[in-house]
Amino acid sequence: MSKLTDVPKRILIGRALRSDKLGETLLPKRIALPVFASDPLSSVAYAPGEVLLVLSVAGVSAYTFSPWIAVAVVVLMFTVVASYRQNVHAYPSGGGDYEVATTNLGPRAGLTVASALLVDYVLTVAVSISSGIENLGSAIPFVVEHKTLCAVAVIVLLTLMNLRGVRESGKLFAIPTYVFVAGVFIMIAWGAIRGLVMGDTMKAPTADLTIHAEQGGLAGFALVFLLLRAFSSGCAALTGVEAISNGVPAFRKPKSKNAATTLALMGGLAVTMFCGIIALAMATNVHMAESPAKDLLRNGTPVGAGFTQDPVISQVAAAVFGSGSFLFVVLAAATALVLFLAANTAYNGFPLLGSILAQDRYLPRQLHTRGDRLAFSNGIVLLAGAAAVLTYIYGADSTRLIQLYIVGVFVSFTLSQIGMVRHWNRHLLTEKDPAKRRRMQSSRAINAFGATFTGLVLAVVLLTKFTHGAWVALLGMVIFFVTMTAIRRHYDRVSDEIAADDTPDDDVVRPSRVHSLVLVSKVHKPTLRALNYAKLMRSDTLEAVSVDVDQADTRALREEWERRGIEVPLKVLASPYREITRPIIDHVKSLRRQSPRDAVSVYIPEYVVGHWYEHLLHNQSALRLKGRLLFTPGVMVTSVPWQLDSSEAAKKRARKRAEWNAPGAVRRGPVAAQPKKDKTTQKDRAAQKDKQEKTPATER
Amino acid sequence: MSKLTDVPKRILIGRALRSDKLGETLLPKRIALPVFASDPLSSVAYAPGEVLLVLSVAGVSAYTFSPWIAVAVVVLMFTVVASYRQNVHAYPSGGGDYEVATTNLGPRAGLTVASALLVDYVLTVAVSISSGIENLGSAIPFVVEHKTLCAVAVIVLLTLMNLRGVRESGKLFAIPTYVFVAGVFIMIAWGAIRGLVMGDTMKAPTADLTIHAEQGGLAGFALVFLLLRAFSSGCAALTGVEAISNGVPAFRKPKSKNAATTLALMGGLAVTMFCGIIALAMATNVHMAESPAKDLLRNGTPVGAGFTQDPVISQVAAAVFGSGSFLFVVLAAATALVLFLAANTAYNGFPLLGSILAQDRYLPRQLHTRGDRLAFSNGIVLLAGAAAVLTYIYGADSTRLIQLYIVGVFVSFTLSQIGMVRHWNRHLLTEKDPAKRRRMQSSRAINAFGATFTGLVLAVVLLTKFTHGAWVALLGMVIFFVTMTAIRRHYDRVSDEIAADDTPDDDVVRPSRVHSLVLVSKVHKPTLRALNYAKLMRSDTLEAVSVDVDQADTRALREEWERRGIEVPLKVLASPYREITRPIIDHVKSLRRQSPRDAVSVYIPEYVVGHWYEHLLHNQSALRLKGRLLFTPGVMVTSVPWQLDSSEAAKKRARKRAEWNAPGAVRRGPVAAQPKKDKTTQKDRAAQKDKQEKTPATER
Repeated sequence: MSKLTDVPKRILIGRALRSDKLGETLLPKRIALPVFASDPLSSVAYAPGEVLLVLSVAGVSAYTFSPWIAVAVVVLMFTVVASYRQNVHAYPSGGGDYEVATTNLGPRAGLTVASALLVDYVLTVAVSISSGIENLGSAIPFVVEHKTLCAVAVIVLLTLMNLRGVRESGKLFAIPTYVFVAGVFIMIAWGAIRGLVMGDTMKAPTADLTIHAEQGGLAGFALVFLLLRAFSSGCAALTGVEAISNGVPAFRKPKSKNAATTLALMGGLAVTMFCGIIALAMATNVHMAESPAKDLLRNGTPVGAGFTQDPVISQVAAAVFGSGSFLFVVLAAATALVLFLAANTAYNGFPLLGSILAQDRYLPRQLHTRGDRLAFSNGIVLLAGAAAVLTYIYGADSTRLIQLYIVGVFVSFTLSQIGMVRHWNRHLLTEKDPAKRRRMQSSRAINAFGATFTGLVLAVVLLTKFTHGAWVALLGMVIFFVTMTAIRRHYDRVSDEIAADDTPDDDVVRPSRVHSLVLVSKVHKPTLRALNYAKLMRSDTLEAVSVDVDQADTRALREEWERRGIEVPLKVLASPYREITRPIIDHVKSLRRQSPRDAVSVYIPEYVVGHWYEHLLHNQSALRLKGRLLFTPGVMVTSVPWQLDSSEAAKKRARKRAEWNAPGAVRRGPVAAQPKKDKTTQKDRAAQKDKQEKTPATER
Repeated sequence: MSKLTDVPKRILIGRALRSDKLGETLLPKRIALPVFASDPLSSVAYAPGEVLLVLSVAGVSAYTFSPWIAVAVVVLMFTVVASYRQNVHAYPSGGGDYEVATTNLGPRAGLTVASALLVDYVLTVAVSISSGIENLGSAIPFVVEHKTLCAVAVIVLLTLMNLRGVRESGKLFAIPTYVFVAGVFIMIAWGAIRGLVMGDTMKAPTADLTIHAEQGGLAGFALVFLLLRAFSSGCAALTGVEAISNGVPAFRKPKSKNAATTLALMGGLAVTMFCGIIALAMATNVHMAESPAKDLLRNGTPVGAGFTQDPVISQVAAAVFGSGSFLFVVLAAATALVLFLAANTAYNGFPLLGSILAQDRYLPRQLHTRGDRLAFSNGIVLLAGAAAVLTYIYGADSTRLIQLYIVGVFVSFTLSQIGMVRHWNRHLLTEKDPAKRRRMQSSRAINAFGATFTGLVLAVVLLTKFTHGAWVALLGMVIFFVTMTAIRRHYDRVSDEIAADDTPDDDVVRPSRVHSLVLVSKVHKPTLRALNYAKLMRSDTLEAVSVDVDQADTRALREEWERRGIEVPLKVLASPYREITRPIIDHVKSLRRQSPRDAVSVYIPEYVVGHWYEHLLHNQSALRLKGRLLFTPGVMVTSVPWQLDSSEAAKKRARKRAEWNAPGAVRRGPVAAQPKKDKTTQKDRAAQKDKQEKTPATER
């Protein structure tokens, strides 16, 4: 299956083309940057504002601390980027924080990280879309007037797009991201020129307002606490940094190096934009308050509930470019778009993480297929549902949602960095080469610093935000953790239960003979097919069984049976209550009692239909019977399908589904990147190919 | 299965006792009367009031027409009773109106009757419960203040009772019905004594109110129309009369004669009660209005929305016994209870009719099992849902609901009577005995008169009530009719499609050899069992197939395979996308291409679990694979079950379900009443019995 030279196979299998295509779309850095960085870069759209909001509690004078907070965020950003550059080199497989934590700290730590990430994905959607709506609202008032509705509508739209399997393309990400980055940089540059060179006074829309300090004149511990809280809010700028470490396989070679460079680039851009926006906000006198309606004053009176507090980035843009100007609108649109793209990354990440967790049996096993439609659908619906509920509850207010946000990120940062320290410790035990040892030691130092710093931030976030909403995120993590632990425990218990003994002659699993029964209601094609198939199997005894639900029907069946001279004996079971299931179960049980060492094989003709409502009309008795038969030991149940004409419709749908592409494939890199060997022998394959060329592809 | 002398069988099968029990519970007339008559007798609780309500439109002076309307209702009642006595004699099988119409007028007429009856059952629940709540409310004000809530609560309660399969007992019906009948007769007698003998003036609670005539001074056509409308409303007293004709098999012998006598008894009681209540209402000066809030006046001013217009029966009881007196409360409670029992009859009738319709393939076939739990559950939930919606929409207002009610009843009366006329015509063609011919001719005359009269009433009802709500009932009938026609057409089409040709050597259904595949993921007990079973089947080729989703797992599988020396060859399919379904489908298709005349048999080990949530954790891949495999021609799929320990829980539940009794069994009569013969030969049975006595009953 690795080489696709033969045309019939290409036509038959088709999807293998995907593998080719993916191979072609390995990401160059200039595309990888927007693909992976839309999440962290977009967070500069709300992080600076959050800092000012918190500071405003102590009055506008506290704004003077904002540069210091910006510096702290920048230092943290560099730390995290430096740390993750180590991850990228050490784990080029793209396993991400879950892999790092599981490998180095054990499954419980891994599961904690996974729970944190799952919660985080939900919040990425809720926060990014809410913030996107707010940015869009600065240009289109209607949107902000119907905030919750619009936010939920965008969630629904993204959900539908992802359920349909719209292919993510690098270029699609590149344009708005670059427009956004360019826009912000132009704004910073133009603002600097206007302010410093031309000496213009730029005034934000809220420049003339004053802030009513909720807690004026804070000092000492209270002030420190407030500053820490402002810093925690600023840390929202760091969300999504870890995305690149999950995506290493998608990079062009040398993968790790390119990924590390992209990471550095992304960090540089993010901090520049973050600091630039904060500086411009100070220069243009942006005033923001946590409760704008009562704490923002115009000429001494509160602005009231009708006032919409636009995001910092749009206020700054209004000051620099002029409100409603072309560049202002472009930047607002690009900001909203980048934020929606950031939300979209969660739609890719959540089901993917789910499939990895399923592989480790923390989630239902059938979800572990990579790129499987069902797995993706389930994950997407769960994600969208949770995000929509949160968005609805919090009224699409990004400020309130952000209180929940950063907990998960920093849990995962911290555990991942601790894991990396352990990783280096382990490698240092065996590594002899002094040059390599030195490099490892410095990596370890970086990761240790990262772990300490992010751990501290986590503590600060928990301390300052617990009552503001962080508890909700923690609760979510606990729920995920407990559920996944329970699922894993169930699988382990079942696995013990079904483990094969080493004595192969297990009495339970070795019947000696087979009695076959074919269920018959009428003599029609499905029945005849089932009879023929059953005959092919050459079991020890074979009889046709019918239940006498209606006397006239039974008589007709007997006559038809004799008329056709069907040589299989027909047994009719009495059913005084017109039941079908029970007489058959009783008959099977009596067969089993007669010869307990034998197995009973029941053939059920089954209709294959094309529409869901036809399921209501067919096979229901068969399904129920099968359900009951399976509880009887020593019984196997064979469905002999009869494809009704209408089943063609379902076949067509299935074929369409087969062409479905898992969203987010581009950021995961091609499958071929994994080491793989074809398991069918060379000879097998040649033989098969031979046959295929001779046999026309009549099926499908 | 007919004789239950052997103890082991009795223990094993158990339920056969039911048949015995039913045999003992054949109904004597004194029990049959309350069982079947709760519906028609209970309607005297609301029918008289409806007559007065309509007349009040023309002012209180129109009340003088009420005796004439009562006479018309009495004549109609006698006609219908006389007609149905003919049905009972001609169709002792209890098929009811659907059978009569189908046999004599063809399937379209039968389906019309069935649709009418289904709608009617829904309305029986809605009307009876709403009226019951109103009667209860005359004694307990809270109930009437939360009318809709209480009515829906009663619907939910009845639904749960019926879903759980509470056995209907004749005695349970007898007590409240006889208390109700006795109460009404005592009331009539005591009222007559007080009024005529003692000369007391009895005053109903509304005696001092006056009625504002919406359309005072009606005359000519308008008055006739109003009288006809009042008569239509009074016809509500006839609902449920047909119930006995469905229940003939439940009577003691001579069945038809006893049923006919009970019918006459019921008619006599109903008309006496109906007339007595109307007479008392006139004597005690009951005043009722369609819109009491504005049309009932106290000292010239409307009573307003706070006023509760109690049902006629309770107003009369208040006048005769005194409001709040012991007998008043007993009668109110008995009335409510009888009305709830009347609603309960619909819970039995609806699913039963559904199962008859399913037998005729107008409804999904799996519902045709008599007394089957699933069929009953579906029917009950559908009935309760529709009734609850109607009750909610109409605010549990029995007066508004009654506008919808009688259409269905009279459609079914009329078609059934026309059918009976045809029935006699047909029999008269062949009958020679002059005595019998005379009897048939007189029966025909009665039925012809019944058909004409009920047909006229139907026309009147449609004419006078169409805009008042009868259109809703008609719409419901059309929906049922169209749906059932579509289902029947689907079944017929499929039946044509699968009809066996007369050339038995059909190429399509005659494969020559079988390739067997056993799906393997790991070597554990379920896999080993599947392998052993597959080996038993001696197919032409047998191979184990595994999909390489995870390399390490696959390697472990190969090693275990060799270590155990399993002689079945193991084939590993590559799966670059970690899919399970597609590689197997492709492999099966390639086998089919290699030898198109052969069949492929796929064995899938399947887990049998005990809780619904475990289904989410197991078998999902297997089920999806199976779903896809069945679309591939020439494939059969065998489930080899492995019962997990937890499956015991489900087994216990199943055993409990097996002891479930279909509600309403008592009114349908025992199954033994149908002619039946045991289909297994005498020899077979003896052999089986022999075995059973030797083999201890280890299973179950």
